[in-house]
Amino acid sequence: MQFQPADPGFEARVRASFGRQAAMKLIGATLARVEPGLAVIELPYRADLTQQHALVHGGITAMIADSAAGYAAYSLFPSDSSILTVEFKINLVAPADGERLVATGRVKKPGRTLTICEFEVVAHKGANATVCAVGLETLMCLAGKRDAPGG
Amino acid sequence: MQFQPADPGFEARVRASFGRQAAMKLIGATLARVEPGLAVIELPYRADLTQQHALVHGGITAMIADSAAGYAAYSLFPSDSSILTVEFKINLVAPADGERLVATGRVKKPGRTLTICEFEVVAHKGANATVCAVGLETLMCLAGKRDAPGG
Amino acid sequence: MQFQPADPGFEARVRASFGRQAAMKLIGATLARVEPGLAVIELPYRADLTQQHALVHGGITAMIADSAAGYAAYSLFPSDSSILTVEFKINLVAPADGERLVATGRVKKPGRTLTICEFEVVAHKGANATVCAVGLETLMCLAGKRDAPGG
Amino acid sequence: MQFQPADPGFEARVRASFGRQAAMKLIGATLARVEPGLAVIELPYRADLTQQHALVHGGITAMIADSAAGYAAYSLFPSDSSILTVEFKINLVAPADGERLVATGRVKKPGRTLTICEFEVVAHKGANATVCAVGLETLMCLAGKRDAPGG
Repeated sequence: MQFQPADPGFEARVRASFGRQAAMKLIGATLARVEPGLAVIELPYRADLTQQHALVHGGITAMIADSAAGYAAYSLFPSDSSILTVEFKINLVAPADGERLVATGRVKKPGRTLTICEFEVVAHKGANATVCAVGLETLMCLAGKRDAPGG
Repeated sequence: MQFQPADPGFEARVRASFGRQAAMKLIGATLARVEPGLAVIELPYRADLTQQHALVHGGITAMIADSAAGYAAYSLFPSDSSILTVEFKINLVAPADGERLVATGRVKKPGRTLTICEFEVVAHKGANATVCAVGLETLMCLAGKRDAPGG
Repeated sequence: MQFQPADPGFEARVRASFGRQAAMKLIGATLARVEPGLAVIELPYRADLTQQHALVHGGITAMIADSAAGYAAYSLFPSDSSILTVEFKINLVAPADGERLVATGRVKKPGRTLTICEFEVVAHKGANATVCAVGLETLMCLAGKRDAPGG
Repeated sequence: MQFQPADPGFEARVRASFGRQAAMKLIGATLARVEPGLAVIELPYRADLTQQHALVHGGITAMIADSAAGYAAYSLFPSDSSILTVEFKINLVAPADGERLVATGRVKKPGRTLTICEFEVVAHKGANATVCAVGLETLMCLAGKRDAPGG
């Protein structure tokens, strides 16, 4: 799908918002790509991100998936809006086993109030890429509430 | 609901597994309570856990919810088993605004292979307690695969 | 939870809307109870509602669960509004085996735009009652769009 | 994705199972296509399938989506197995407005015990095709339990 962003400055706006997510910094996630209706977040493996089997915790996988879906949606929002995650559903389809996880969020259905995204998380291990999570997320646009510090 | 745990040593087993979740240590989450079919995880607020509005990131809320549901299920599993999260769905129904989040997971339907749990996350702010997330999670029991380092 | 309905005529409004759902008539479902934030739908077993094992089809179970959650939410909406199901998630935790299914929807978190409900479907077989499905649903209030024929 | 079915007679087996779903007959749904890891169900509009706005009921949309995902999974199962829907999540992204709904289920991740599918429902109205629902579903394989009358 091709989307026309309402805000030509969408990429800077998305990157600024991502930069304010302290939780992404804590886990070492970076925003690798932003396009209209799409966002990609990368997360290098770290031992302090793991569950009891030394693989990345499913909740951490969900964190980057949630943010990727959220920023995919936010890329299409007007400049003076902020965003809320209403809900998401994630299937952890394979162990998150690799040096790097890549979460891609894509807008499936944009809307004035609600936007529906799908996401996929891929674990990269050497030359192998394995889908380890898929999901759907519902986002809400809060128009006229700029997503800014203090705001 | 009242559950009879298959493993009388369930609490020690659950606490040992939780202790191996480096991701819970990273965010400062602790296992406050374990009972047959129930687990409670607490998370004090920290500035490095936040999203762009300085509230706890929805993905962090999902992390503790996922673990609470998982350990609620795991409390009923046999001693020589390990656990996988198959999927979960979370509704973020209010901002996670408070000094402390408390995630409670409860078994809704135990099963030999699959166990279904519900969870709820409450934000405590002074004397106020607000439900900020609710969800459902499906867990899988891997019998005969001890949940241990190297195993 | 106790809810104060915005519209004192909520029960008549809910019952009228249910009466316009031809699909509920097709499957033989009735609206057994409506209270502020709660709706109960009953469905007697019929051979033409079944899947390949002669139990009620999971999709039929989902139908009554969806409607029960929707009308629980709608009971709290203003009189000049209509309602949309945004999404739902259902776990089919036991076979829908019985003479009668009873779906109960409850508002978990009311809101001006979005309302979150939980539902449960119980199969009654003789003296036994078994929870066969649980789920969560997100509903949207369309204010000023009366839920009426032609409207 | 390309899948190799375990059972070369998968299409006949899927069609026979679909033929035993009385609920599909009740609503007038037909199995349009079966391939390894894919199933397509069609549903012509009928006035008795509708909700209060004369569009196809969301629960009916969910019914055909659930069955499409289930038969997509079942196409890859061994011949002496039966299938259970563990859970599904559906987003109703647009009104189901059209002469015909087409639900497509696709296997996203096959597995010995659990298979994860995605589905999409498209409403066809004249020359227009609109995606009206998307979702994810988890299916369980019951090996050695033939999906047959009496069985």
